[in-house]
Amino acid sequence: MSYHCYFENEFHPLDTPLLKTNDLGLLRGFGLFDYLRTYNGVPFRFAEYWSRFSGSAASLGIEVPLDKEAVYELLGELYRLSGEADVAFRLLLTGGYAEDGLTVTQPNFIIRSEPLPKDNPAGRKTGIKVIPYEYVRDLPYVKTTGYVHMMKMSAELRNQMASDLLFHKDGLVSELTRSNIFIVRGDSLITPGKDALRGITRKLVMEKAAGKLEVQERDVSLDELLSADEVFTTSSTKGVMPIVQVGDKLIGSGAPGRATVALQLLVDGEFARYGK
Amino acid sequence: MSYHCYFENEFHPLDTPLLKTNDLGLLRGFGLFDYLRTYNGVPFRFAEYWSRFSGSAASLGIEVPLDKEAVYELLGELYRLSGEADVAFRLLLTGGYAEDGLTVTQPNFIIRSEPLPKDNPAGRKTGIKVIPYEYVRDLPYVKTTGYVHMMKMSAELRNQMASDLLFHKDGLVSELTRSNIFIVRGDSLITPGKDALRGITRKLVMEKAAGKLEVQERDVSLDELLSADEVFTTSSTKGVMPIVQVGDKLIGSGAPGRATVALQLLVDGEFARYGK
Repeated sequence: MSYHCYFENEFHPLDTPLLKTNDLGLLRGFGLFDYLRTYNGVPFRFAEYWSRFSGSAASLGIEVPLDKEAVYELLGELYRLSGEADVAFRLLLTGGYAEDGLTVTQPNFIIRSEPLPKDNPAGRKTGIKVIPYEYVRDLPYVKTTGYVHMMKMSAELRNQMASDLLFHKDGLVSELTRSNIFIVRGDSLITPGKDALRGITRKLVMEKAAGKLEVQERDVSLDELLSADEVFTTSSTKGVMPIVQVGDKLIGSGAPGRATVALQLLVDGEFARYGK
Repeated sequence: MSYHCYFENEFHPLDTPLLKTNDLGLLRGFGLFDYLRTYNGVPFRFAEYWSRFSGSAASLGIEVPLDKEAVYELLGELYRLSGEADVAFRLLLTGGYAEDGLTVTQPNFIIRSEPLPKDNPAGRKTGIKVIPYEYVRDLPYVKTTGYVHMMKMSAELRNQMASDLLFHKDGLVSELTRSNIFIVRGDSLITPGKDALRGITRKLVMEKAAGKLEVQERDVSLDELLSADEVFTTSSTKGVMPIVQVGDKLIGSGAPGRATVALQLLVDGEFARYGK
């Protein structure tokens, strides 16, 4: 029992050399992906992840060679092969092999089962530090494989004992490298409406907050974020993660705020119940 | 005798599956490359390409596992294995394999020998059409593998019977997707000074033009380009390629200009003599 990779109609152990070196994802960054996990052995909100994945593919003009039902079955098979209680899945679609390093003929579609990432339980309790970084993604609604800024800054993040970058451009914040951003001001919960990936956990948080807080999807300036009562980030693997420091500036008292902790509990509850 | 790929101390036929699916070039676009060719069996200006490749690697913080002399020897071996009169080489460096899809441990370094690309001889005689596209590369001096805009627009280029995109942003032109841009105005030869890759053929053209034209490296607006006497693009495989149409607008008379043709001849002469 172990993690596997699905490619070209077969399952392979995860560390099998599979790709030729003229894949357009590798040579030209022409690739997109999505990433989800199981709770209680069931892929969390698969329909929503599939919809986003298909949307990314349509945006880049790459055809997905399998349909939703076929992929769901493959996830089940990968889950069984893993022998684990819960796993993560990575769906990866590239422009495929190109003789000339340019021309798309047939996409490469890979599905990997992976160990669940360490979810930084300490960070979820005490909050994390992020660093402001001037940048906005070119294609913010598409989950491309373009993470060169994050990778380039990884040593600097370690030096500054920070967990992630906070992207901002022309005064407005958009997202972190792999997660969405929320601020709390009084009774309002606010998240940027543009230039940010449509996170599944972002949507879940907005569902859970409805009726308790006034949920706003609108522009958020870096200044407004720095003076917010609370700040947190959301992702499929982090859930609700408090942000207590941005660069040198503490957010609020420098500890996770009340709304953040309440939403974290609600979201964790949703995860814990899922599939049961 | 055939094209080969060097990877992990071995030569493999070009279409061998070699890479595991957790390479950071593939998963995170954390990769860079360079691309050069031989003339008369000798890698053209290898020292300059190597310098740019090493510079790209340093910018991204990826260590190149081999030195210049070792790589030059490998190019010779790949050339001999090809059995061809002339070949192209692609040096590709990625962040390597990452168990967690994030953390760099050891880079992957690949060298491919490839058939020479078809150099569009018709286009070199009659000129090509390009389409203006609003974009500037994030890291313009680094030859990353980030070409998602070019790939995304490839169908549109075919529809418009255009050869390439001309990047412009905030009124200024920078480069094409894989080549540099020059304009001719009277006795001046002008190329953008910033936000463009430092092309080896760009430099060669500036050398050849010195003393014949007034060579300027400075900002060029899209308006200035559209009203220029001549426009051309330069790359390692295209040499000097006339641009006679930008979107709907003809450049000059719509035929390659005198300075362009003269520089093309000078550059082709340099190529033809190289290594002899």
